[in-house]
Amino acid sequence: MANDNKGWDPSQLRKCDLEFEEIPRFVYNDPRVDEFISENKPVVILGSKLAKAAEKWTLDYLEKNMGNGDFTVFLSKNHKFKYYDDKKSMLKSNSDFIPPTKKLDMKLPEFIKRLREWKKGDDRLYLQQGLNNTVGPAIVHDFLNFDWNFCTSKQSKHNWGPLTSNLLLIGMEGNVTPCHYDEQQNLFAQVHGYKRCILFPPDQFDCLYPHPVHHPHDRQSMVDFDKPDYSRFPKFREARGCETVIGPGEVLYIPMYWWHHIESLMRGSYTVTVNFWYKGGPNGTVTYPLKGHQKVAVMRNVEKMLLDVLQDPKEIPPLLRAMVLGRYTE
Amino acid sequence: MANDNKGWDPSQLRKCDLEFEEIPRFVYNDPRVDEFISENKPVVILGSKLAKAAEKWTLDYLEKNMGNGDFTVFLSKNHKFKYYDDKKSMLKSNSDFIPPTKKLDMKLPEFIKRLREWKKGDDRLYLQQGLNNTVGPAIVHDFLNFDWNFCTSKQSKHNWGPLTSNLLLIGMEGNVTPCHYDEQQNLFAQVHGYKRCILFPPDQFDCLYPHPVHHPHDRQSMVDFDKPDYSRFPKFREARGCETVIGPGEVLYIPMYWWHHIESLMRGSYTVTVNFWYKGGPNGTVTYPLKGHQKVAVMRNVEKMLLDVLQDPKEIPPLLRAMVLGRYTE
Ligand SMILES: [Zn+2]
Ligand SMILES: [Zn+2]
Repeated sequence: MANDNKGWDPSQLRKCDLEFEEIPRFVYNDPRVDEFISENKPVVILGSKLAKAAEKWTLDYLEKNMGNGDFTVFLSKNHKFKYYDDKKSMLKSNSDFIPPTKKLDMKLPEFIKRLREWKKGDDRLYLQQGLNNTVGPAIVHDFLNFDWNFCTSKQSKHNWGPLTSNLLLIGMEGNVTPCHYDEQQNLFAQVHGYKRCILFPPDQFDCLYPHPVHHPHDRQSMVDFDKPDYSRFPKFREARGCETVIGPGEVLYIPMYWWHHIESLMRGSYTVTVNFWYKGGPNGTVTYPLKGHQKVAVMRNVEKMLLDVLQDPKEIPPLLRAMVLGRYTE
Repeated sequence: MANDNKGWDPSQLRKCDLEFEEIPRFVYNDPRVDEFISENKPVVILGSKLAKAAEKWTLDYLEKNMGNGDFTVFLSKNHKFKYYDDKKSMLKSNSDFIPPTKKLDMKLPEFIKRLREWKKGDDRLYLQQGLNNTVGPAIVHDFLNFDWNFCTSKQSKHNWGPLTSNLLLIGMEGNVTPCHYDEQQNLFAQVHGYKRCILFPPDQFDCLYPHPVHHPHDRQSMVDFDKPDYSRFPKFREARGCETVIGPGEVLYIPMYWWHHIESLMRGSYTVTVNFWYKGGPNGTVTYPLKGHQKVAVMRNVEKMLLDVLQDPKEIPPLLRAMVLGRYTE
C-alpha cells in the first residue's frame, strides 16, 4: 500500500491475513469519478470541498460550538466497536445477547474530557452521532457551508434517493469499526486524522458470513479479522477486497451493500469523519442476472420472510439446513 | 413385518437398508381410524367398501369395458418408475434432463396385450390414468357404486377440500414408485394384488433430499433406495419411516406431504389400485411451531420465489449456499 509521505506509515495498519488491491483515487472533476460511482464501485475523491467547512472542527472548536445536546458515545474494552441493533437485542429470542460495547448519552465536553485524559487500560471511546438541530450556530453555519452542490449533483446524476442523515464520527486512534455493510449509498468525508478502509463487493457475501438478519449484529461479518476462525469460516481466505487510507479533505464513495472495515490508524491522531448517507435509487428495469447487491437484498428478504412465517428464530437454521444440505450443496 | 398367511411372504419385499415400524390397521368403523386421520397420520382401513365395486376389474373385464380412450402408460428399462413433470422438463434450463421412463398413450387392449406377452428383458409397464368420461358404461356403473358415502364422510369430518381426481394404477409385479410426496390427501384403495407401502413423515425432509422444486423430479427423493449414496445423502441413515403391505379391499390413508415409496410385490400378481385425491383443507388459525408439512410448504415457496426473482435455476444453489453455509450450519 503506497503512502508517499502522506502523514502515515504502513506500521500504523493492523495486521490482516488478506491482501488487497488499491482503491483508485481521482481528482473530483476527473470523469472517472462518475464512471466508478455509476458502476457502484468504490473510489476516493480528491480535492472536493464537500466537508471542507469542517476542517476547523478540532476538539477545542467542537467543545466550544457543538451545543448542549446529547451525543451517542460507544465504550469498548478493546479496539473493536462492532455495531448492534438495540431493537433486535431487546427481542426475547436475543435475550442471551451480550452487547460488545456500552452505549452512552454524553455531552460533548464530557466526551472530550475523557478523550484527553484517556490512558491505557481505560475503555476506548467512539462518538457516533447524527447531526441534528441541537448543534450551536457556528456548527450550523459550517454545515451550511458544506459543498452541497457537489453531493447533490452526485445524487441526481446517479439517481440516488433522498439524503437520510449526516453522521459525525469522532474516534480514538486505533479504533476499528469491524466489517459490515450498509443498505445506503455513502459519501464518507474524512475531516481529521487518517482512516484505513477495507472494502469488499456484495458478491463476497459467502466469504464474509454475516450474522442472521434477525440478530442484533445483522449486516456485520461474523469473522474476527484479528483472528479469523477458518474452521467455521473457510471461505474467508478467498475474500477479495480492496483498500485505501484516506486523510483530511478526501472523500471515499462506499457503494450501497459493499462491505467495509474501517480503522483509525494506530498511533495516529483522533479521527473526525462526516458521513453523507443517501437511499438507493428506484430499481428501474431489472436486468438479469441480478447484481451482487440485489442478491443480498433477496437473501435478506428470505430470512425476514422465514422469521415472519416461523415466528421463532431458532426454527430458521434447521429449516434452511434441510432445504440446502445435500440438495443445493456440491 | 407380519404377514400371517395373507397372500404374500417377506421374500417378496425388496431389500432396504432401513428398518420400519408397522402402520396400524383398523376396521373401518373403529374410532381410531378418524383419530389417525385427524392427526394426519397414516392408517390402513380394513373392511370398507370404498372400492369394492372395482373388485371385478380383472384384466379381461377392463379390456372389455374400459372404452376406447387413451391411457397413459409408462415404460421403464428397470423396476423403478420415478415420476417427472413434463412441463418442467420442457424448460430450457432442464434441457439436459433425460426422462427415466417413456410416457406413451395407449389403448387399453394394447396395454393388456403387452402385459400378457411380457418376457424378461422387455420394458416394464405401469398404467397411471385418471378416470374420465371416456370409460364405458359398465365402468361408469362400477364407479358410481364406489362407497362415496365413506370417503365423503372422511372429507367432511377432516375438513378436506374437494376431490380432485381418481387415478387408476395398473402395475406389473415388482414395479416400484420411488419415494416422493404429494401435495394432497390420498385414500389409496388397493383392488388387486399386494403393494408394500413405506411412508415417512414430512419432517424427514432433511433425510430424504428432494430434488429442487423447479426440477422435473420435484417432490421426488434424490436417494436411490436400492443403493443409497451415503456420501451425498448422509442423513438418509437416520430416516425413520413406517410400512405396511396392503391387499384387495384395504385402503391406506396417505396424509398430504407424507413421503411414500410403493412397490408391487415381487413375483406376485399384477396390481390394481384406485387413488382418491383430495385437496388439503383451509388452514384455519395457524398455530406455532408450524407442523412438518407446513414447513415443507414454506420451503417450497422459498424455492419458487427464488426462481421467480433470479430467473435462472443455476443461480439458486450458490445463493442458498451463501445464505446458509457457515451462517446457519452448525
Ligand atoms: Zn458502515
Ligand atoms: Zn404419490
